[in-house]
Amino acid sequence: MTTSLPERIGAVVRKRREALGLSQEAFADRIGMHRNYYGAIERGEKTMRLDTFERVAMGLEIEAWRLLKDGAG
Amino acid sequence: MTTSLPERIGAVVRKRREALGLSQEAFADRIGMHRNYYGAIERGEKTMRLDTFERVAMGLEIEAWRLLKDGAG
Repeated sequence: MTTSLPERIGAVVRKRREALGLSQEAFADRIGMHRNYYGAIERGEKTMRLDTFERVAMGLEIEAWRLLKDGAG
Repeated sequence: MTTSLPERIGAVVRKRREALGLSQEAFADRIGMHRNYYGAIERGEKTMRLDTFERVAMGLEIEAWRLLKDGAG
């Protein structure tokens, strides 16, 4: 079963956030995003716009293109 | 004046499309997108979702992360 783009991106975002030792709530706060919305991103239930994706990447201290490459599957 | 994300992305998408020798109309057809919507993307008037961005990258025969890197400015 191939994973969808949002699921792949959600997984790499989660991995990166956990590596920073941040909870979902702390990270959502860091980037000024509602916690529930951020949780849905990690679960692959939301497809981000590019500007949101850049915001998340910045909060994860990684370039957006690198994060997208990690999630390229 | 710093360019916005959609403007940076629109510029690299246009450059890549022109390098393939395709008109906006032919390229929009290739990826099954309405021509006006695609034109707005190139003009930086639309911020794509990641799935749309992947579709455009595929049509441009380039990995999405590479296209995002080109547009990182």
